[in-house]
Amino acid sequence: MAVTAADVKALRERTGAPIVDVKNALEEAGGDDAKAIEILRKKGQASAAKRSGRGTSEGVVEAYIHADARKGALVEVQCETDFVARNEDFKEFARQVAIHITAMDPEHVTFDDIPEEDVARERAIFEEKAKADGKADDVVSKIVDGQLRKWASEVVLLDQKHFNEERYEGKTIEDLRAEVAAKTGENVRIARFARFEVGQE
Amino acid sequence: MAVTAADVKALRERTGAPIVDVKNALEEAGGDDAKAIEILRKKGQASAAKRSGRGTSEGVVEAYIHADARKGALVEVQCETDFVARNEDFKEFARQVAIHITAMDPEHVTFDDIPEEDVARERAIFEEKAKADGKADDVVSKIVDGQLRKWASEVVLLDQKHFNEERYEGKTIEDLRAEVAAKTGENVRIARFARFEVGQE
Repeated sequence: MAVTAADVKALRERTGAPIVDVKNALEEAGGDDAKAIEILRKKGQASAAKRSGRGTSEGVVEAYIHADARKGALVEVQCETDFVARNEDFKEFARQVAIHITAMDPEHVTFDDIPEEDVARERAIFEEKAKADGKADDVVSKIVDGQLRKWASEVVLLDQKHFNEERYEGKTIEDLRAEVAAKTGENVRIARFARFEVGQE
Repeated sequence: MAVTAADVKALRERTGAPIVDVKNALEEAGGDDAKAIEILRKKGQASAAKRSGRGTSEGVVEAYIHADARKGALVEVQCETDFVARNEDFKEFARQVAIHITAMDPEHVTFDDIPEEDVARERAIFEEKAKADGKADDVVSKIVDGQLRKWASEVVLLDQKHFNEERYEGKTIEDLRAEVAAKTGENVRIARFARFEVGQE
């Protein structure tokens, strides 16, 4: 089956992957969009892994203040070059992250940023509950892992779905970060954020 | 000497004090602006002291991002009522504080926010230096106090002069805070701030 330029363009827009990769993936997948996305995702993860080792010394500081002026967020998003720091997709990502933080009030950027004692506390609670529910020892750890993942998706910025689920198709902030990294070809990193709400010190 | 409405208006604009207070102060000072300001300042401090005991549960969160998008600040400024939170002078004060923090990089809001060990460290350094300079014991503490004040004016937001010294006549952020408190008749408090600059985690 022939891959048309329109197919390539459509999938390019959906994935943000480089055009030549999209074309190759569609050809390899025999024109099947879902398969092509899977191929691109694997390739994307491979190059993202390469990228994530690279230093990020450039970037932007972005802010968002809610219309009521009672809450807002400040975020630093890093990339590798000044060139990408001025890229519109990169800047829009930083803007979306600031808006999302204001709306969703995450506690940490990544799971690794959660203090160890907090993870231990949650793990103990989930374990106790699973055992109290009479679960066998060999399934308790699976249940606990699943519950820790769910908890992380509530407190970890990268694991949260963008609050506008309709517009962003249920993608997480990490999904959006990976997309802008793929689009710009640079390692993109959310370095830190602050969120204030009046009276909630 | 008669106090004219124009005199009152001019001094009112310079000080932000209530009109009746300005008129009384000018009359008491026999029309001397400098004396009248001194009277208003004492009165202002008295009412500010009364105000500073009152609770601040309303306010705004304000942000500023420098034109290069590489640095910015987020600040929470509190007042007593929703009404003042929407006041233009109050909002302009919050905006100026966000701009100032971005430019001047303070470390703490008030002197009391400096960790005790940091104050002790600076005090020890200044004391050692004063003694090494051969100062008598009875003047060392005065010298040290003066140097601690100077140090505070570098790291404490409220003690810093607004970075635009020309426009703000060398006033400190505390001076501007007291002015907006006088103008609005409410306790005004800078609750907290964050400042990010790319690559300076």
